Amino acid sequence: MTRRAGSWDSVRVRVGETGYEVRIGAGLLARAGEAIAERCDGGRVAVVADGRVAALHGGELARSLKRAGLRTAMWTDLPPGEKTKSLGRAEALYRDLVAAGVDRWTPLVVLGGGVAGDLGGFVASTFLRGIPVIHVPSTVVAQVDSSVGGKTAVNFAEAKNLIGTFHQPDLVLADPELLATLGARDYRAGLAEVVKIAVTLRPDLMERLEGELDAVRRRDPAILAAAVRACVEAKAEVVGRDERDRDVRGILNYGHTLGHALEAASRGRMRHGEAVAVGMNGAAWIGERLGGTRAGFRDRQNRVLAGVGLKLTVPGADKKRVADNLKLDKKVRNRKTRFVLTLQVGGASVWPHVPARLVREAVRLVTS
Amino acid sequence: MTRRAGSWDSVRVRVGETGYEVRIGAGLLARAGEAIAERCDGGRVAVVADGRVAALHGGELARSLKRAGLRTAMWTDLPPGEKTKSLGRAEALYRDLVAAGVDRWTPLVVLGGGVAGDLGGFVASTFLRGIPVIHVPSTVVAQVDSSVGGKTAVNFAEAKNLIGTFHQPDLVLADPELLATLGARDYRAGLAEVVKIAVTLRPDLMERLEGELDAVRRRDPAILAAAVRACVEAKAEVVGRDERDRDVRGILNYGHTLGHALEAASRGRMRHGEAVAVGMNGAAWIGERLGGTRAGFRDRQNRVLAGVGLKLTVPGADKKRVADNLKLDKKVRNRKTRFVLTLQVGGASVWPHVPARLVREAVRLVTS
Repeated sequence: MTRRAGSWDSVRVRVGETGYEVRIGAGLLARAGEAIAERCDGGRVAVVADGRVAALHGGELARSLKRAGLRTAMWTDLPPGEKTKSLGRAEALYRDLVAAGVDRWTPLVVLGGGVAGDLGGFVASTFLRGIPVIHVPSTVVAQVDSSVGGKTAVNFAEAKNLIGTFHQPDLVLADPELLATLGARDYRAGLAEVVKIAVTLRPDLMERLEGELDAVRRRDPAILAAAVRACVEAKAEVVGRDERDRDVRGILNYGHTLGHALEAASRGRMRHGEAVAVGMNGAAWIGERLGGTRAGFRDRQNRVLAGVGLKLTVPGADKKRVADNLKLDKKVRNRKTRFVLTLQVGGASVWPHVPARLVREAVRLVTS
Repeated sequence: MTRRAGSWDSVRVRVGETGYEVRIGAGLLARAGEAIAERCDGGRVAVVADGRVAALHGGELARSLKRAGLRTAMWTDLPPGEKTKSLGRAEALYRDLVAAGVDRWTPLVVLGGGVAGDLGGFVASTFLRGIPVIHVPSTVVAQVDSSVGGKTAVNFAEAKNLIGTFHQPDLVLADPELLATLGARDYRAGLAEVVKIAVTLRPDLMERLEGELDAVRRRDPAILAAAVRACVEAKAEVVGRDERDRDVRGILNYGHTLGHALEAASRGRMRHGEAVAVGMNGAAWIGERLGGTRAGFRDRQNRVLAGVGLKLTVPGADKKRVADNLKLDKKVRNRKTRFVLTLQVGGASVWPHVPARLVREAVRLVTS
């Protein structure tokens, strides 16, 4: 599924009329300009970047765009953090795009993590009913998960990702070298999504993580590139089968039902990945109680999560707020919370009827 | 292309995996509930309605929903008028949907004209990354044009429809009886879209309009039903070939490049259709100047427009503002305004390079 092309790996996401390419390789940032120029016939781009990432890597991107003969009609830096994913911030970007005279053929290049990607993708999908978007993801979460698959979002009314669209990118350029400059906490949080894909879809990746925990912790380039590649392959496969999240794509939400509720209840204190790790612990516990999840699965999952430094509970979280937030989950149907449960490594599915009592117990377990 | 089914006509719009049905027939409003219930497995709907239309026809819709066993989880009336198509109003609707506990499977039923349809469609397409939408269009514009084809929009920064998405409805129920209660000015304005489709795509409709101007003016039910049917057929055909407005769908924008600029510059004083009629006059004039549009076409078009009571110019419009607005047109590419020109009845195409001088002259012509 992965093709070696030049000095990068290439994974194709098969959605829509043509699909698109995800390139994975060290040094792709410095060569972003040429790749973008191939997909941009107006000679102009707009850029939206996480401000912190722009300070570290923006110069490299700007030089690469210039070398490729592209004019940067707009460059907007975003404040880091989940609060940036708001409708107000989307409006500010619309204003910048109007002021720059961006037209329907001008791609929006997004440099940053999940926050920049979700917001930038939302703005690109709604400005002039959709302009092209090219992702240059800079975090683990963005490289292995959020930049692939076309989900865009802003938060609303305390609910994570309540407003959003599906808008597939034209190209994703994942350069694992960018992960070296991540803060320790962000790096660790991002690994939750890697473990999520490993336990739900890729037993081979799970075994590799278990065998090389130490290399993962010290950000060994070989294991990082392999993990990004495996996750992108797995995600591309699932998205290709179910772009609009009607069935199989739901399993990518493993750990996210509880996770989103915990994250929103923390009001910015928890990172997305930190909340997902706790959510995976809760989901595995529910799976065991319902009797479907194999004995030993939860221990195995949690050993890897803890091994990369992630916590499995959030003592002191506001249980009432978590419970309220669960009601806003996008998977709720006829007021019933549906959970993704993993029965064994590589085997996840959506359970429509998890009893409310079990959900309450799981919330108690992970917040005690 | 049109199928007679029960007591209504049925046109299928072939987009996406399954496409959807547009039903056209007198009395469909009173039977909306059964049609909606067939497409709604949760037993609940949310409704957003133009307040003026709700006062006239809301009771009928509510009774029909109830008879079909559907629970109305939310009913929000909108103030009439173009100002309602704002991001602020979208936010208010998101709040209502959250408060009503609307999930991804609850359809949003939209009762009203283009304003309610565009805004309701935008909210439906972005809430939880997309909930189903069912249109019950109540105006000429909405029945013949805006409810079919999935374009959603809000206005932004003085630019008409600057923010929006493509989100196809699950069903459209067009009941020509609703047109009887339209105000004279709204009815007349809506006819501009009918003439637009007639001159660009349906010579047979054009001939019928020319022959039965009087019947059109007195809202004869037979001519109205035939006009709605012909327009929906024509639009379904075009949308089926080009959902995302990349090529042929562009011709539906005939009269809209100038029209949108005039409408926005009028700050609410012009109706959409009034502006489109003037825009069609300007576009036909440009086509004649460029030499492509056949002699006599403009006269023929304008005779029908004037015959149904539409004005062909807006003396006193703010020329500077119109020119500024033209720069924000969604068809602008590399800062060049592209125009849809109709060369003869039934033959329209997009012209990428209309000289700026001609556009300025056309603006002068239609605003003098």
